[in-house]
Amino acid sequence: MRQERVERVLEALLPPTALSPTRLHEAMRYAVLGGGKRVRPLLAFAAGELANAAPERIDSVAAAVELIHVYSLVHDDLPCMDDDVLRRGRPTCHIAFDEATALLVGDALQTLAFHVLAEQPLASDASAQLDMVRILASAAGSRGMAGGQAIDLESTGRELSLPELEIMHIHKTGELIRAATLLGARSGNGLSTAEIERLDRFSKFAGLAFQVIDDVLDAESDTATLGKTAGKDAQRNKPTYVSLLGASRARAFAEELRGQALQALDVFGDRAQRLRELIDFIVLRIH
Amino acid sequence: MRQERVERVLEALLPPTALSPTRLHEAMRYAVLGGGKRVRPLLAFAAGELANAAPERIDSVAAAVELIHVYSLVHDDLPCMDDDVLRRGRPTCHIAFDEATALLVGDALQTLAFHVLAEQPLASDASAQLDMVRILASAAGSRGMAGGQAIDLESTGRELSLPELEIMHIHKTGELIRAATLLGARSGNGLSTAEIERLDRFSKFAGLAFQVIDDVLDAESDTATLGKTAGKDAQRNKPTYVSLLGASRARAFAEELRGQALQALDVFGDRAQRLRELIDFIVLRIH
Repeated sequence: MRQERVERVLEALLPPTALSPTRLHEAMRYAVLGGGKRVRPLLAFAAGELANAAPERIDSVAAAVELIHVYSLVHDDLPCMDDDVLRRGRPTCHIAFDEATALLVGDALQTLAFHVLAEQPLASDASAQLDMVRILASAAGSRGMAGGQAIDLESTGRELSLPELEIMHIHKTGELIRAATLLGARSGNGLSTAEIERLDRFSKFAGLAFQVIDDVLDAESDTATLGKTAGKDAQRNKPTYVSLLGASRARAFAEELRGQALQALDVFGDRAQRLRELIDFIVLRIH
Repeated sequence: MRQERVERVLEALLPPTALSPTRLHEAMRYAVLGGGKRVRPLLAFAAGELANAAPERIDSVAAAVELIHVYSLVHDDLPCMDDDVLRRGRPTCHIAFDEATALLVGDALQTLAFHVLAEQPLASDASAQLDMVRILASAAGSRGMAGGQAIDLESTGRELSLPELEIMHIHKTGELIRAATLLGARSGNGLSTAEIERLDRFSKFAGLAFQVIDDVLDAESDTATLGKTAGKDAQRNKPTYVSLLGASRARAFAEELRGQALQALDVFGDRAQRLRELIDFIVLRIH
């Protein structure tokens, strides 16, 4: 089972709790291990396998991207942001530990992500590996994920147009999903530049589809199924695909994005089966 | 003036405020620009010049380290950590903006630091540059600076022994001061491994001396001179070199560390003049 592979890799990369500072390391492990859909690592696995990458290289890039993702969840759940108490079916990090520790957990997880990208050979040469560092930094920074969070802050309670909403999500979730796919692909050398461009195109549709479905699930599902507080968006008057399009048209939009993602994979024939399964998982999931 | 060089470099690296998300970029520039002693960049400059590095390479590594330092200050000032309102003589980032923005500012500055290290050629080859990424990540992560903050959290209100206090500070400030020196040295190729080891030794004494004097200044100086709230340590019952040794013995200890730092520079003769000036600045400063 692939999720178990992610778990094993992260388990091995995180500092052991016996190592000082023990409480911080315990909280880092609490935040990262034991759950999550692991969509980004799964995308990295699938793209890496398509590129004939060595499994241990794919593992590292997959873990680096997931560490960035988890750091953003931990900070996003803090009282000054979304103020959430439930994540992956368990108390959020600042509830299980405390706010200061959760802040440091996010900080240290981000650092660990870059550490992982620089520790072992992960690409055809060191220069290509530096590109990986740059790709992850672009995806995570103020013009990527952190920037998307900032746009989110600014937009709460405001009306957004559909293009504005899309820009927010391309930053907030899309860029990191894209980075997961690209880093997976670049951990091998079996793909041409044109093929990597097709993967890039796939990942952009996949990222947006992921977010549209996230909005639908927040509106339609319940807290127990989601493992995080349901109905938050409406409660906070956040603009979402559901608030703009309604749930039914939002689902249809996700289906359309799925079609375009699948089309981008055409060139790969049977080799992209795993990526096709993932886009189905993204669009048809119930949590 | 060297501080102005730091300012210019950071100015050019930070995203312009005209770029979306504008409020986040404005807050990032507010936090980074317009002040600070810039001890870490100055150490990187001095070590880089000793290693005959190209100025633009030194500029980048100096900026990367300073971005990590500033991110840590912004997060450290948050209500859930030190809850401070004054930094570098101005309102802290979360006071001037808001808590959520300050959280994202710190997050995005950390990402930017790693971006800067991967963007341009900064070392003799890409592999040596990946080493730089690893050095900075080690210095900043849960076994470095963030770990030092965690130890600090755990130790507030507790009695610490002198060795425990030293361990906390080696993590909290020492590792990043060391990284500044080592990254500066590695941005050139004029130094032997043995010489880099001498610089490493120097930086460890310099880092500890810096912290001892910080403790003395917090106890003896006033808020206007420091540009940050004075007397915080005693008020919070934080263990410091002053609480353990008294101010006079703490100063003597810093002087001793300065002597050992200077001794580590002996091998360099006149070439290390700038580093000698810096250790003097660190120990004799009044803010």
